[in-house]
Amino acid sequence: MTAQAPLDRWEHRVEWPLAVVAVVFLIGYSVDVLEQPHGLTAQVVRVLTALCWGAFALDYAVRLWLAPDRWRWFYRHLLDLAIVALPLIRPLRLVRLVILITVLQKAVGNAIRGRVVVYTFVGAALLVYVASLAVLQAERDDPSAGITTFGQALWWSITTITTVGYGDEYPVTTTGRIIAALLMIGGISLVGSITATIASWIVQRVAEEDTTAQAATVEHIEDLRSEIRALRAELGQLTARTSAT
Amino acid sequence: MTAQAPLDRWEHRVEWPLAVVAVVFLIGYSVDVLEQPHGLTAQVVRVLTALCWGAFALDYAVRLWLAPDRWRWFYRHLLDLAIVALPLIRPLRLVRLVILITVLQKAVGNAIRGRVVVYTFVGAALLVYVASLAVLQAERDDPSAGITTFGQALWWSITTITTVGYGDEYPVTTTGRIIAALLMIGGISLVGSITATIASWIVQRVAEEDTTAQAATVEHIEDLRSEIRALRAELGQLTARTSAT
Amino acid sequence: MTAQAPLDRWEHRVEWPLAVVAVVFLIGYSVDVLEQPHGLTAQVVRVLTALCWGAFALDYAVRLWLAPDRWRWFYRHLLDLAIVALPLIRPLRLVRLVILITVLQKAVGNAIRGRVVVYTFVGAALLVYVASLAVLQAERDDPSAGITTFGQALWWSITTITTVGYGDEYPVTTTGRIIAALLMIGGISLVGSITATIASWIVQRVAEEDTTAQAATVEHIEDLRSEIRALRAELGQLTARTSAT
Amino acid sequence: MTAQAPLDRWEHRVEWPLAVVAVVFLIGYSVDVLEQPHGLTAQVVRVLTALCWGAFALDYAVRLWLAPDRWRWFYRHLLDLAIVALPLIRPLRLVRLVILITVLQKAVGNAIRGRVVVYTFVGAALLVYVASLAVLQAERDDPSAGITTFGQALWWSITTITTVGYGDEYPVTTTGRIIAALLMIGGISLVGSITATIASWIVQRVAEEDTTAQAATVEHIEDLRSEIRALRAELGQLTARTSAT
Repeated sequence: MTAQAPLDRWEHRVEWPLAVVAVVFLIGYSVDVLEQPHGLTAQVVRVLTALCWGAFALDYAVRLWLAPDRWRWFYRHLLDLAIVALPLIRPLRLVRLVILITVLQKAVGNAIRGRVVVYTFVGAALLVYVASLAVLQAERDDPSAGITTFGQALWWSITTITTVGYGDEYPVTTTGRIIAALLMIGGISLVGSITATIASWIVQRVAEEDTTAQAATVEHIEDLRSEIRALRAELGQLTARTSAT
Repeated sequence: MTAQAPLDRWEHRVEWPLAVVAVVFLIGYSVDVLEQPHGLTAQVVRVLTALCWGAFALDYAVRLWLAPDRWRWFYRHLLDLAIVALPLIRPLRLVRLVILITVLQKAVGNAIRGRVVVYTFVGAALLVYVASLAVLQAERDDPSAGITTFGQALWWSITTITTVGYGDEYPVTTTGRIIAALLMIGGISLVGSITATIASWIVQRVAEEDTTAQAATVEHIEDLRSEIRALRAELGQLTARTSAT
Repeated sequence: MTAQAPLDRWEHRVEWPLAVVAVVFLIGYSVDVLEQPHGLTAQVVRVLTALCWGAFALDYAVRLWLAPDRWRWFYRHLLDLAIVALPLIRPLRLVRLVILITVLQKAVGNAIRGRVVVYTFVGAALLVYVASLAVLQAERDDPSAGITTFGQALWWSITTITTVGYGDEYPVTTTGRIIAALLMIGGISLVGSITATIASWIVQRVAEEDTTAQAATVEHIEDLRSEIRALRAELGQLTARTSAT
Repeated sequence: MTAQAPLDRWEHRVEWPLAVVAVVFLIGYSVDVLEQPHGLTAQVVRVLTALCWGAFALDYAVRLWLAPDRWRWFYRHLLDLAIVALPLIRPLRLVRLVILITVLQKAVGNAIRGRVVVYTFVGAALLVYVASLAVLQAERDDPSAGITTFGQALWWSITTITTVGYGDEYPVTTTGRIIAALLMIGGISLVGSITATIASWIVQRVAEEDTTAQAATVEHIEDLRSEIRALRAELGQLTARTSAT
């Protein structure tokens, strides 16, 4: 436990700074794709994006350095390496933003189902927005592309993540199709999370419905145990009295 | 508890009147979209719709006024405000109609799974109908629209809510696409509810199947407790007899 | 219990005869749609179909007659009436065929999950086959129809029930679209059943995995109870001995 | 138990050799479809594929021979016979490769949910790859086919298994459509597995969340039992003492 402490302390300390970096990265990425800036703005965006990349790379290096068993950590965090190294999946850095959800949780409370709902909706919204940006960047320069505006990209993302897939718009480039595949996997997980949350709620309500069919809980067992303890105390008194005679 | 009483009493009292207002609104909305009335009918519909809007706005104002902590209530009911203020999501007022389901519940009974099934089917039917009206109103004046009759709108709604999405018809306007996105989220929840209900049923049946693997219930614990109480009574008698000698 | 006995006896007695009638109806329906017979064959098919209809109508009438509370039975079996009265949903008579599944169950055993899997697969196969026949009959005479052969109808049914919905083929007539809607609802239930079966299996396996986290079962409670009974017997002996001295 | 031993021993012994044969078959199949080889390479591939077929046929024959009740085994392994006999479903031999997953499991551990996730992802990836090869082979020579390159086949597989189904590409041959149907069933199971894993996780977390609502576990029952045993020991001592006086 103490051996892992420096890594834990680092991860706790950079949680919020990295979320800020992710927000900056998201803004830079949005401006880059939506505005297609020239001149000074383009340079600012380029520098900002590079700085964000640097922050994530530094975080990766420090965490690898602090890990007690580096090979093990390296194998278990191959995705983190890929996010730093591969330009294509750079937007995945935005998963750092889930920490912003902790702000929302004050309203929702700490109940696990409430948290799953919040993560699902915020995660889905972020996924749709980022996938729209990424697919727009990948597609718009292709002559046979159907997705050429952000509105079309957003509409395509929503029909894809919900697995409706009208087919009025779809990516035609390899990059766009890789983004689409990731979005579809996200869509399946989204459907899964919603279904699972409803299922968990129904299972619990069905169990509560009928007292005679309720699962025995730790509370009931504790009640029983206190009864047995009282019994034992009485027996102890009896034993004491018997030996006194 | 007593502090919240006036708000609770108000909400209980206006439950049925608001359901009636929602039915009137639904009829007005249907006539408006399907008949595209002129002259007197158009004016009647306009007045009726305005009155319904007034009733909902009044209800919102009264509830905000009666709430013990108004800021908190305001934050937690932003959706209610949006339903009153934004014309686009006006049809969401129809969620008030779910109270009509209580009439259906007499046949279904109070079991939680039966209620989930009724809510899912009635909710899905209402959602399909209203989404068809809304998308028809949004699309039919667009020159590139494919959805121009109510039959097409209904067919599109059904293929969308089930996430089949043939793509023979799809909305092309921004308003239509926002309605589509809401319908898709409804479709995912619909699939989720059906799956969850089946899952809950199977889990329960599997548990019932094998007595030796049945989860211990409160009933079993109660049986145990009465045994221990009998034991304690016997011991009490013994103690009394011992102290008597 | 005794009041409902005649109805129960009738339903039990006609179970297999009605399944045979359903098979005859299925064959007649298949020949009618696939062969589009003329002359004598057409007449034989027409007579057979009429006889099947008569058998189902008779069964409905007898059951209504035998029901202890006829109004109640009438309300609860509106779907049965619709199957007899409405030509469009005639194929639903084939749900009688599920009884044939009992033959398959010898291989599967009586476990609830095995039965759900068998019902799901046999039901899905039957649904796909009947929906293909029905949509082919509804569509093929329409000049704008894409579904004109049984192969196309079958392919369309499969893409629809799995909610994939490529959109290369889709119904264009009202009858075809009603069949499609029923098939989609079937598809959602199919997906739901498969998911629910897997979920139930995982939940059970997770519970079995870790003994200390296993839910207490009736068996454990029975063990406890026999311990308490032994304790009580010993105490009884002690009491007897004490009163003997 | 001893009667089935030779069959069990054989199956255990050929597990890894058959996985190697499956890998060779996968490579041969990939080269055959992707390279469309001529001359010597084509002959090597043909011989390799025939050898693989021979190995699977031999395995089937030996297992049938070793089975204690051959008819029963024959009925329960009709799918195995079909895999050996029907060229169309030859790729199903690759299910043998799931044994390679045991290598991956060292990293994942033995927890049932971790294993379901690994099986789902590896199985889905293998299914997508093999379905892409099979559909490409079936479609590319058809003049009306849309799927003519491996990239298109892969894109089609992914949109199909996730049930998105844009409809920009779809099989037109009968063979291709049978492959598509199998892939869709795989897609539904994939969605089901992911949903079920999430559901199981949420159900467990919800149960852990609130101690007073936790299901009683075997551990709690064991605690109770040791209390009762202590009680019984004390009572035994008391009895001994009473009889001593």
